[in-house]
Amino acid sequence: MFAMVTQDENLYTQHVPVIALATDFGTQDAYVGVMKGVVLSICPTARLIDLTHHIRPQNVQQAAFVLLSAFEYMPTDTIYLVVVDPGVGSARRPIGVKTNRGTFIGPDNGIFTYVLDQLEVQQITTLQTYNLPAISSTFHGRDVFSPAAAQLASGVAFETLGQPLSKLEKLPSPRFEIHEELIHGEVLYIDHFGNVVTSIGRLAWDVDDLLQLTPVFQSEGDVEARTLHIRPETCTLVIGEHRISPIRLTYSGVESGKLLTLINSAGQLEIAVNQGHAAEMIGVQVGAPVTLHINDEG
Amino acid sequence: MFAMVTQDENLYTQHVPVIALATDFGTQDAYVGVMKGVVLSICPTARLIDLTHHIRPQNVQQAAFVLLSAFEYMPTDTIYLVVVDPGVGSARRPIGVKTNRGTFIGPDNGIFTYVLDQLEVQQITTLQTYNLPAISSTFHGRDVFSPAAAQLASGVAFETLGQPLSKLEKLPSPRFEIHEELIHGEVLYIDHFGNVVTSIGRLAWDVDDLLQLTPVFQSEGDVEARTLHIRPETCTLVIGEHRISPIRLTYSGVESGKLLTLINSAGQLEIAVNQGHAAEMIGVQVGAPVTLHINDEG
Amino acid sequence: MFAMVTQDENLYTQHVPVIALATDFGTQDAYVGVMKGVVLSICPTARLIDLTHHIRPQNVQQAAFVLLSAFEYMPTDTIYLVVVDPGVGSARRPIGVKTNRGTFIGPDNGIFTYVLDQLEVQQITTLQTYNLPAISSTFHGRDVFSPAAAQLASGVAFETLGQPLSKLEKLPSPRFEIHEELIHGEVLYIDHFGNVVTSIGRLAWDVDDLLQLTPVFQSEGDVEARTLHIRPETCTLVIGEHRISPIRLTYSGVESGKLLTLINSAGQLEIAVNQGHAAEMIGVQVGAPVTLHINDEG
Repeated sequence: MFAMVTQDENLYTQHVPVIALATDFGTQDAYVGVMKGVVLSICPTARLIDLTHHIRPQNVQQAAFVLLSAFEYMPTDTIYLVVVDPGVGSARRPIGVKTNRGTFIGPDNGIFTYVLDQLEVQQITTLQTYNLPAISSTFHGRDVFSPAAAQLASGVAFETLGQPLSKLEKLPSPRFEIHEELIHGEVLYIDHFGNVVTSIGRLAWDVDDLLQLTPVFQSEGDVEARTLHIRPETCTLVIGEHRISPIRLTYSGVESGKLLTLINSAGQLEIAVNQGHAAEMIGVQVGAPVTLHINDEG
Repeated sequence: MFAMVTQDENLYTQHVPVIALATDFGTQDAYVGVMKGVVLSICPTARLIDLTHHIRPQNVQQAAFVLLSAFEYMPTDTIYLVVVDPGVGSARRPIGVKTNRGTFIGPDNGIFTYVLDQLEVQQITTLQTYNLPAISSTFHGRDVFSPAAAQLASGVAFETLGQPLSKLEKLPSPRFEIHEELIHGEVLYIDHFGNVVTSIGRLAWDVDDLLQLTPVFQSEGDVEARTLHIRPETCTLVIGEHRISPIRLTYSGVESGKLLTLINSAGQLEIAVNQGHAAEMIGVQVGAPVTLHINDEG
Repeated sequence: MFAMVTQDENLYTQHVPVIALATDFGTQDAYVGVMKGVVLSICPTARLIDLTHHIRPQNVQQAAFVLLSAFEYMPTDTIYLVVVDPGVGSARRPIGVKTNRGTFIGPDNGIFTYVLDQLEVQQITTLQTYNLPAISSTFHGRDVFSPAAAQLASGVAFETLGQPLSKLEKLPSPRFEIHEELIHGEVLYIDHFGNVVTSIGRLAWDVDDLLQLTPVFQSEGDVEARTLHIRPETCTLVIGEHRISPIRLTYSGVESGKLLTLINSAGQLEIAVNQGHAAEMIGVQVGAPVTLHINDEG
């Protein structure tokens, strides 16, 4: 969350509904454009933000992470329209989730797990009222999710979307175990630059230049999950045969072409190469185990 | 077309012009951004929807299909700004086409063939009045088409765009032949997921769970083109050495990794793989012949 | 620059701030979406134009060229939000540059060199006032540049952004040397279609069908840089082992699949293949030398 400094507060008297889209549809076809056509047919004033349409096909976990990395910077009452939906046409339910920080529209397949763990869930609903007249079995993004998001944007009450629900499907938590002098995690995400994001976080620099760790994911380790204070120069990250230390402040903290670890912009421990592509250099994929040694001697 | 259920009808008293863009420009260069700059310089309130900018370079037929798959879901008076233009700078005319469902701006190279066959064409015009002062020989998207679309969005009369025309270039129809117990078609399009869209459609499930076929393209077969009613469990689609039956309701109608056919969200018969990439699995390209056997015994 | 012919001048009484984005972030991750979230949180009415997010990672020169090719077609008071930032987190300054044609926000790494050479620079500033409360060391696009651009869009005075500056980092000029009967240049850019853009320009056809050359980049040759008038049919472009002549008017000036040179839509001399991919055909990369022989006999 961040404070906004605006000269002209009157801007806010004009409500501009924002819909943020994330899908695995790619941009080669007109699927995303069609969803936007449905949205603007219903709510012509909605502002649309593309988070990404390049989630790997059917990769619900990747979409869940993208939402986690983005939501804090979206306008407070953003409507998230998220379609990564391998079960489209099957029994999985279309849902809406109202929180203290925006509303989430998409399939009930765990896609909102990570972000909802950070928020206060206020209401959950099925999506039934505003479906297009003919619902295809393959494109609920167009026929079910877009009309629901657009109706919300145009001012309908959340309660009118469908029937209340009390429980949602959840993804398993990524590996994250705090032990006495080490933390086990896994590779959660690899970005466009080849930066390798781990499940170890959130980390933030405190006033004493220590790293303060506030777990994002539930810890399974033998140390109770709590806020840790870590001395970055004593840390070594181990991934495969690579041992990387200490934790740096910036990409340029090492020479061009060299491996480093740092705290990325989402507060996660990340493996990078200054002006290079870390994932290719170390040959790593999502799910690979990583271990952070704290107060490491060697 | 779909009915819109909106709580706040006042939204519609505020006219928000929508321009839908489709090009083969890709998104690496600033070409699309430059077109949008020209549009917003002329009509700052226009809303822009990207249908796609990843039409394969110079592939007019692919663009024609993308428009066909999208137009029904766009706002009714959308202005389509379409630039796949291998003849840029040559004698091909820049045109505008006004229909009962939106206005189409682009080159006269057949790109609007499929969509106009579904619509009532009201007026056709050349584009002359609003060109930028210096017209390049290579980028009419910027110099001719964008200003015309933006002027329409800002309220100028269609008649002012240029000189009336009576005839347009047309693409040949895709293969589509209805015979007594089979339909010949071809692969029309392969989407981001590897789903293989055929020219056989539109198909829709009727109340008796039969498939009702309303031809989109002109039939060349020996049976008069008309609405057919097909029993899906008796159908076999043949493509190359593959025989696929019956027609399924959803991707999850077969096991993960298996081939199936279904009716896609545009109402076309489609070959897919549950959670896989059909085009790669069967090694098929646009234009490949397909045959649907109806009431098949074997 | 181009003249705008608008029927309804009232549109302009309504100020719609435009922010044009260019980054090397790609569209796989939510980085661009997050920047837009920050912008719309601060200035909900801003209109956003994506110039491109596919600058090659850390390629400042490519971004500089993309801006040069686009700025003339953007609304006059566009705010450019440009993030190609290999030095993020290091000592390089975040800057704002106010000109007679828009305001430029980004890192002080030379990225605005080419475009500012065409404009009147009015003020330069650091960016300090409107940063988000927690500034990451890796994502100033989100934490520093987006809030500054959005605050400008919402009406704050340029002077409030930070401290005035008098000098900017500059990129070296691309090779461009005018000699008596030849011009040396280099490959500046390769676009999505494989068209090879050179540093030789701007060129424009004059009323006598001569090519009028007005140098964009500083000439290092032994002929003083000035406006030349060139007879296109006497010109031969040499690149590697290829000799291409004369300069054509359009892509279709040669047979399909053949090499040609023409003046592209940005006024630069370009090597292309009619309906083909020139960069692949001649195996060329950015930086490769080219020579244009003028009044060539052979």
